[in-house]
Amino acid sequence: MTSAGTADGRDTAVTRVDVDAAVARIAGHVRRTPVSAADPPAGGGALWFKLEQLQQTGTFKARGAVNRIRSAAETGELTAAGVVTASGGNAGVAVAYAAARLGVPAEIFVPTISAPAKVRRLHALGATVVQVGREYAEAYEAATVRADETGAAFCHAYDQPAMVAGAGTLGVELWEQTGGVDTVLVAVGGGGLMAGVAAALDGLARVVGVEPVGAPTLHAALAAGGPTDVTVSGVAADSLGARRLGRIAFDVAVGCGVRSLLVGDDDLVAARRWLWDRYRLVVEHGAAAALAALTADVYRPEPGERVAVVLCGANTDPADLG
Amino acid sequence: MTSAGTADGRDTAVTRVDVDAAVARIAGHVRRTPVSAADPPAGGGALWFKLEQLQQTGTFKARGAVNRIRSAAETGELTAAGVVTASGGNAGVAVAYAAARLGVPAEIFVPTISAPAKVRRLHALGATVVQVGREYAEAYEAATVRADETGAAFCHAYDQPAMVAGAGTLGVELWEQTGGVDTVLVAVGGGGLMAGVAAALDGLARVVGVEPVGAPTLHAALAAGGPTDVTVSGVAADSLGARRLGRIAFDVAVGCGVRSLLVGDDDLVAARRWLWDRYRLVVEHGAAAALAALTADVYRPEPGERVAVVLCGANTDPADLG
Ligand SMILES: Cc1ncc(COP(=O)(O)O)c(C=O)c1O
Ligand SMILES: Cc1ncc(COP(=O)(O)O)c(C=O)c1O
Repeated sequence: MTSAGTADGRDTAVTRVDVDAAVARIAGHVRRTPVSAADPPAGGGALWFKLEQLQQTGTFKARGAVNRIRSAAETGELTAAGVVTASGGNAGVAVAYAAARLGVPAEIFVPTISAPAKVRRLHALGATVVQVGREYAEAYEAATVRADETGAAFCHAYDQPAMVAGAGTLGVELWEQTGGVDTVLVAVGGGGLMAGVAAALDGLARVVGVEPVGAPTLHAALAAGGPTDVTVSGVAADSLGARRLGRIAFDVAVGCGVRSLLVGDDDLVAARRWLWDRYRLVVEHGAAAALAALTADVYRPEPGERVAVVLCGANTDPADLG
Repeated sequence: MTSAGTADGRDTAVTRVDVDAAVARIAGHVRRTPVSAADPPAGGGALWFKLEQLQQTGTFKARGAVNRIRSAAETGELTAAGVVTASGGNAGVAVAYAAARLGVPAEIFVPTISAPAKVRRLHALGATVVQVGREYAEAYEAATVRADETGAAFCHAYDQPAMVAGAGTLGVELWEQTGGVDTVLVAVGGGGLMAGVAAALDGLARVVGVEPVGAPTLHAALAAGGPTDVTVSGVAADSLGARRLGRIAFDVAVGCGVRSLLVGDDDLVAARRWLWDRYRLVVEHGAAAALAALTADVYRPEPGERVAVVLCGANTDPADLG
């Protein structure tokens, strides 16, 4: 696997060795989430759900955030300035959680238009919230400048080895919990989750990335031969709406042969409802993407194939499921 | 353990042997639901949730219904007339599901005031729905008369050995899945769930029944020395609102030393919200009772105690969790 350099210029290769190191770092700080055997599809085989929405903060991002901060502590990158990130969404909450858990100060940069409820949640976790810029890109820029100023360790939402390796720990768990699967379906935004799981299960299982037609970062990157900007829209934009795939994600996807499947917004909505109706599980729209590949018949398992679907988050309002 | 006779005059003793037979009968027809390791309480130990809300039909009742019908088939009690039950709630849905799954006709008697959505759900499962009487007691009476007429096997919602033993299968699973616990907290309505789990884990773990102050059937039965009518009210009345404890449940509770703890409606509401906020799990109010014993500090685990909480159902509107 070739190594190029992330958005912030760091090294990119992530392998199972990194994921195994992350497994040790996160132990006791995040939850080992359960897997649930679901009704097998026609043609036999097996279907498993990895219930990662039960994770601390409601998404898998807590894994990467803990791994990032503990890695930075090991290498001496972590100073009294703590950590800084840019995200009003799941990644920001995860960094705030991990920082509080590990006793490290955190500054979270979010655009001025961020929903007050999200800002309150970050405050409640003890983070310093800095509202700056009208768009995410401006908040991101300000956060990187701030990191340079203070020496705080910058936490990228997906394009950092430690974030990717942390996400990959759920792949290790699901392998152990299921006794092995043939295929893992995961949602793709910036691609940190996909890359982590693919690195974790390289040579063991096939990983398939699923993304909304309104946020096709992996699809576009594979077509263009490298990460490229896409126009973002749709019901899952808040979680899967990264503007381009991460460099690490691209390298891992190419190295491990990860494909992209596209699903429509209607498919996401239907999959989210299907999961509530049949399993009484609530996920956010982005976390319904991987499942939608099955329920919308975009991914058809072979007879006997053992498939795991990662349910990666539930920061959602369940009101419409009533 | 003494045996007395159920509401419908049948034999009552239920033991682990019956539960083990039920484990074999239900295999492949209902789900083996996962357990989730939750954050341990202060003082260490362990906390587990049995995620039985993921069960077919959304509650544990599917276990008893399948076991009841398959038992009746084994003993020759099951004829072409199929099964009959009285319940517009979770037990009725479970019997309809089990009957459809096993290819057996089902008649479900419900009061005329039953919510149209519930009646539609029974129809959707292929059951014949008979709406009769203004109150549950009248529908129940009509169902037993109908069973005598047609020879259909009557399915009691909780006070039948096969229903109790079927519910107990979740106790066997949780023991295996956790590697052993000291205490299991379960909600009590008619007591079938409590009795099944207590029979399954007799001599292995302590079972504690938890019930709303507005439906204290076990509490009242233990105080009176036998099942006695209670006045039913409160947010969990639709699932825990049996008017009196079953005879089987009483005998098992006394034999196994099961205590009753009472929680208020406010505690149920708070526990249900706590579970969503911290674990992104949705349960119905009745299924929050066992958890409420912990979150409302009514049950205080010893240091090191390993506690399992049975989350037994999620037939609820999640709108208020938004
Ligand atoms: C719930 C959820 N699922 C999936 C993703 C996508 O993850 P990634 O950006 O690593 O591809 C995110 C990103 O925030 C998320 O919050
Ligand atoms: C979700 C749920 N929990 C608990 C109970 C109580 O079970 P039991 O009547 O066996 O005590 C019921 C009964 O219908 C139920 O539906």
